[in-house]
Amino acid sequence: MSGHKKISIVCFSGDFDKMLAAYTIATGAAATNREVTMFFTFWGLNALKKNQGHSWLGKDFLSRMFNFLMGGKNNLPLSRLNFGGASPKLMAGMMKKNNVASLDELMEAASALGIRFYACEMSMHILGVTKEDLIDDVQEVVGVATFLNESEDAHIIFI
Amino acid sequence: MSGHKKISIVCFSGDFDKMLAAYTIATGAAATNREVTMFFTFWGLNALKKNQGHSWLGKDFLSRMFNFLMGGKNNLPLSRLNFGGASPKLMAGMMKKNNVASLDELMEAASALGIRFYACEMSMHILGVTKEDLIDDVQEVVGVATFLNESEDAHIIFI
Amino acid sequence: MSGHKKISIVCFSGDFDKMLAAYTIATGAAATNREVTMFFTFWGLNALKKNQGHSWLGKDFLSRMFNFLMGGKNNLPLSRLNFGGASPKLMAGMMKKNNVASLDELMEAASALGIRFYACEMSMHILGVTKEDLIDDVQEVVGVATFLNESEDAHIIFI
Repeated sequence: MSGHKKISIVCFSGDFDKMLAAYTIATGAAATNREVTMFFTFWGLNALKKNQGHSWLGKDFLSRMFNFLMGGKNNLPLSRLNFGGASPKLMAGMMKKNNVASLDELMEAASALGIRFYACEMSMHILGVTKEDLIDDVQEVVGVATFLNESEDAHIIFI
Repeated sequence: MSGHKKISIVCFSGDFDKMLAAYTIATGAAATNREVTMFFTFWGLNALKKNQGHSWLGKDFLSRMFNFLMGGKNNLPLSRLNFGGASPKLMAGMMKKNNVASLDELMEAASALGIRFYACEMSMHILGVTKEDLIDDVQEVVGVATFLNESEDAHIIFI
Repeated sequence: MSGHKKISIVCFSGDFDKMLAAYTIATGAAATNREVTMFFTFWGLNALKKNQGHSWLGKDFLSRMFNFLMGGKNNLPLSRLNFGGASPKLMAGMMKKNNVASLDELMEAASALGIRFYACEMSMHILGVTKEDLIDDVQEVVGVATFLNESEDAHIIFI
């Protein structure tokens, strides 16, 4: 198999620690000449949302509730031992102390390395998220067909 | 690589939202001529269980407890913000409102598209689930060797 | 595609049930002549930690907290219905009763079959885990570049 390998990462959970793993694999792969695409779906959309804090915005109850409980890319929870959001902050502190790149730095690096960010259309509908809620780095809002075509000869990693 | 690509989805968690992602990828792939197999293991078995509500059936304590707490394919929890089962119902409402196919519709589509459903033998033993508990769409109860052979030249997605 | 296929398993969560799935796939694959590598990262590191109980060791607050809350490879939680650690014990009992190999047996089998265990350097830094905390089966502490190279022509399974 060729050295030029594609990687497709499906970011489903949107947890702080899982996004850290996703961006680390993504940037590591892109830095070594692999072609990387990241698909953000469901809770993963939260990692693409402009940080607006835990707002109470949205056009119906469910989207308001989700916007309230999930505050955007600077409020991602830890997949375990979250302690109401205290742990991601502690972990970010540990990362800084150990010279590990922060989530924001990794995301900027990902953009700079040409990694494509796609947002899942269906889950945006379900969760009431609009294109305006998302950061500018998002290339496109796509459906499952695009995901499948882009992932045809790629490693698929579901995180 | 050829356009005819296989996809193997390991359904481990059985969460409502993750099953939604799994069926969306599966039906999208099958509709575009990919060969799709879904392996249901551990909590994922719940998504194959006939809906019998939260019953207290089973031959020993653990299987009774699992049957009681996990009620079958119409009672799948959300992977987060579940709120005692209220959120999957709200989400199902949002899906209907936005003309997104329901989980049952996706599952029927999957069957109609020839997607194979396999149940994991080992986890059925561990959780005390029998073939009779499962819906008729399940083709076979298989072990890890069958999974590996079927997935040999497929994308493997662990959900 | 050739019958000699590589499998790379990223063990991220460290849950008892997910590790069971990981080792079952890994040993099944290795037993049928596939080349298997397991990368342990974040909470998955816990599955490589010598069992020292829930100790309060570590050089700073976060690592102490993690060591206290996550006690090593014999204290892995269940991904759901954990009930403070009671369920993994019940599940281990069900496994024994049904002649399913235990987690320790699977891990020994994995080692005997030549499966390589790699620990993720970055997450060891973040969580304050040192090489001395890990069991002897761990071959090496590696970075993301090694993971990507080893996984080049492998199935990647993120668990």
